Amino acid sequence: MKALDELKTRLLEVSDLNSSTALLRWDQQTYMPRGGAAARGRQMATLSRLAHEKFTDAAVGRLLDRAERETASLPPDSDGAALVRVTRRLYERSVRIPASLVSEFDEHNAATYQAWTVAQPANDFATMRPLLEKTLELSRRKANCFPGYESIADPLIDMDDHGMKASSVRELFSALRARLVPLVHAITSRPPADDSCLRQHAPAAEQLAFGAQVIKAFGFDSERGRLDLTPHPFTTRFSLGDVRITTRVREDVLTGSLFVTLHECGHALYEQGIRGELEGTPLAAVASFGVDESQSRLWENLVGRSRGFWEHFYPKLQQAFPKQLGEVELDTFYRAINRVERSLCRGHADEVTYNLHILLRFGLELDLLEGRLAVKDLPHAWRERFEADLGIPVPDDRLGVLQDVHWYSGPIGGVFQGYTLGNVMSAQFHAAALAAHPEIPGQIAKGEFGTLRGWLRDNLYQHGARFTAAELIRRATGKDMSSEPYLDYLWRKYQPLYRLEERGRYATGNGPLKAQPAS
Amino acid sequence: MKALDELKTRLLEVSDLNSSTALLRWDQQTYMPRGGAAARGRQMATLSRLAHEKFTDAAVGRLLDRAERETASLPPDSDGAALVRVTRRLYERSVRIPASLVSEFDEHNAATYQAWTVAQPANDFATMRPLLEKTLELSRRKANCFPGYESIADPLIDMDDHGMKASSVRELFSALRARLVPLVHAITSRPPADDSCLRQHAPAAEQLAFGAQVIKAFGFDSERGRLDLTPHPFTTRFSLGDVRITTRVREDVLTGSLFVTLHECGHALYEQGIRGELEGTPLAAVASFGVDESQSRLWENLVGRSRGFWEHFYPKLQQAFPKQLGEVELDTFYRAINRVERSLCRGHADEVTYNLHILLRFGLELDLLEGRLAVKDLPHAWRERFEADLGIPVPDDRLGVLQDVHWYSGPIGGVFQGYTLGNVMSAQFHAAALAAHPEIPGQIAKGEFGTLRGWLRDNLYQHGARFTAAELIRRATGKDMSSEPYLDYLWRKYQPLYRLEERGRYATGNGPLKAQPAS
Repeated sequence: MKALDELKTRLLEVSDLNSSTALLRWDQQTYMPRGGAAARGRQMATLSRLAHEKFTDAAVGRLLDRAERETASLPPDSDGAALVRVTRRLYERSVRIPASLVSEFDEHNAATYQAWTVAQPANDFATMRPLLEKTLELSRRKANCFPGYESIADPLIDMDDHGMKASSVRELFSALRARLVPLVHAITSRPPADDSCLRQHAPAAEQLAFGAQVIKAFGFDSERGRLDLTPHPFTTRFSLGDVRITTRVREDVLTGSLFVTLHECGHALYEQGIRGELEGTPLAAVASFGVDESQSRLWENLVGRSRGFWEHFYPKLQQAFPKQLGEVELDTFYRAINRVERSLCRGHADEVTYNLHILLRFGLELDLLEGRLAVKDLPHAWRERFEADLGIPVPDDRLGVLQDVHWYSGPIGGVFQGYTLGNVMSAQFHAAALAAHPEIPGQIAKGEFGTLRGWLRDNLYQHGARFTAAELIRRATGKDMSSEPYLDYLWRKYQPLYRLEERGRYATGNGPLKAQPAS
Repeated sequence: MKALDELKTRLLEVSDLNSSTALLRWDQQTYMPRGGAAARGRQMATLSRLAHEKFTDAAVGRLLDRAERETASLPPDSDGAALVRVTRRLYERSVRIPASLVSEFDEHNAATYQAWTVAQPANDFATMRPLLEKTLELSRRKANCFPGYESIADPLIDMDDHGMKASSVRELFSALRARLVPLVHAITSRPPADDSCLRQHAPAAEQLAFGAQVIKAFGFDSERGRLDLTPHPFTTRFSLGDVRITTRVREDVLTGSLFVTLHECGHALYEQGIRGELEGTPLAAVASFGVDESQSRLWENLVGRSRGFWEHFYPKLQQAFPKQLGEVELDTFYRAINRVERSLCRGHADEVTYNLHILLRFGLELDLLEGRLAVKDLPHAWRERFEADLGIPVPDDRLGVLQDVHWYSGPIGGVFQGYTLGNVMSAQFHAAALAAHPEIPGQIAKGEFGTLRGWLRDNLYQHGARFTAAELIRRATGKDMSSEPYLDYLWRKYQPLYRLEERGRYATGNGPLKAQPAS
């Protein structure tokens, strides 16, 4: 396997450059003093450019040709065959986008992001409009590097969620929406959960210590990772032995860092679970944005917001915050952390309404890319659809079209779908794990997570990027991707919490929420 | 200046790679979890190799040729002329050492260092001997890339202290030794200072807070730098706007982190003071190892261990540690932090005996390189000379030839001289600053350091690597490098502290210390 070995050596160099860029970014977001900003941006750009040059070198293409012949007789799931297949896909993608477009887009993104940090708090869409128009144009140019698509969004979606298309996402989301809207309707017609027990002052150190205790129990390996503070939490990796998570703290909310920490821990468990032999290759990566998000959601929500989890951990939380929670019943707390409400912010949305925020954005992205909507009409379209979907008015663009950083720091298209795909998959994986190991809920209620993590490691984590999301789901669950397990999960959880009427379980509808009857 | 501009673009890329390597190393020494070690070593090696490839590219040589013509008519001190001159020197050095030797040495160093971390605590020189023999051979091969030297140590010394040679260092050190030995003799004949006030438990947080207060007063700019903890403190830089210092804490010694912090702060003040226009070029660097060390020593010792400094800061230290120091007089504390004693460890040596440790190592390096001493005889030679110079026996190799990491992580030759050059220069710069601004001592006694730092910035820091150490000293002090200011400083400080007899001031001698009369 001479060509394969040579290919691996070159990929390792690219991996070293990318890992170094990741460290430059992690440091930028955690410890870097302000004075380092200008040079840091340039340093990341230099290393990214070198990695791109090294990866798209014609010699890599020739090595791929030879390695394909060498591995032709290997089973398609073998490390060698998978490595060549995945590398070929990434290589063809990288060489098709001209370096000039990459750097033009990078520079535009940096400038747009800078402008957004000022325009967002100032509720100033007018400033962002020409920049966003340019983003749309660049996004289209990027997509057009891959002719032959069905929707112009397809190549962009494929980059983060390989194998998915606008049409397949739309179909899935449409089925989801038809059932989510009545569910949100039903829940918000009931009296809201009282979450005043959460809105109490809690010192940062105690919050962080509790979070550290939980992620240790989840199986986060601190010999192969760290937890640090940052304004906008993320997970990153410098090698399979060094996976870093970050969190933030709000002292005015008792769980002001906990669920963020659990979310990022979910990403980290995935990356720490990738098989060591894949290190330094494109296989040492998550399978897709959606699969990655399924794991953060699974550990944050399906585990971390479950009643069983808190049967074990609530007494410990009470011990950490006796003044705040000493008199609060487990059920009150459980209802508080699962409060469902129609709100303006995606970032703070509960797990039921969250997807409506995503579906809105995904629909707008498609309309922009496919030419049915102009950037100048975007703020209006946002308000109109938001009110129709969520049933509350949007007071300004700050909480509307300017809310999320995504369109102001990257392409339009190919990002938002991953969040909801993640939610959908999280329930499907979770259900399959429980079907294989019915003892899991009982273990979780004792603070034991080894069986669940082990199933996830064996069925998902260890494979890295070897399989697509669709393949992983079929292998792990025996079925195609479906929103049924997710809707089923939501119903089983929220029906008793909000005492919903059983006949509402399969209600469907896409009508506007604001037409709801008074509760 | 087309070629000059193109050259700068290439140098910027090399600088970005080197800065990224520096971050990889900083993280390795501060926050990296153990699991990241293997990949991190490889990542640093990859980036170093790429930086070396980029810098030694033949195109850089051609650009240098053209840039030399472009800048021929510029004043030699101009940014352009200095940049081309310094880059040419570094380029010629880099291209002369074959890449194969660089990587062979790097791999050998890594293996030797690993072995030393085990052999040093185990007092096991036998294991290190063949590795050290290889180090000596590789050091000679490295030196022999630069034929035409007077001493084989010259090329190695020139790398860190450009412009110095074995002969000039030997001459300076010989004059220093002749006066230091009688001084140490005289001081250690007097009753030792009582330092029991320092050997008290002091919580890490309070120690670090006090250190942070002092470096802020020194002028360390925390918008352009940080302070972190590490086992083996160092200073590093990712850009002129991001200079990181590190320190360690021992809770069983009240000043267990303070002087380390002040030492590293001295390095940082130098790097933060380099003129911003030099960013991204080889001029954005310290002038030499010796000049760099002169600044850590100046701020740690000539300022931080001076009586005037403590007139201002001692009440604050007493406030921070009321139980430990409430009853301790300033003079007792001042004597304690300036206790002189003949000891086995370079790292813990006071500022009078420190240089004898260096002179010993420098002499041994020359004897090894020049073939007068074999590695197998090194432990014996160390013991013999140490006892002759310091007057106390060396109990084992752990505290003898295995003590310092230097020979076990890099070449033999070219390192140790810088420490004593730094001490010598620190006093010469300090004296020149005080001659220009006699108000400095009065200001320091009020906790004001702006005039001293300003003089150092104007005369040293801002220039970066534009001038050699010798040029800097002549420009800043009007004189050639000399050990007189340093000896003068030691005498003025230690004569009253130890009530030495005035007639001892100019005593010279090289005889063994152990022959001292009973005090």
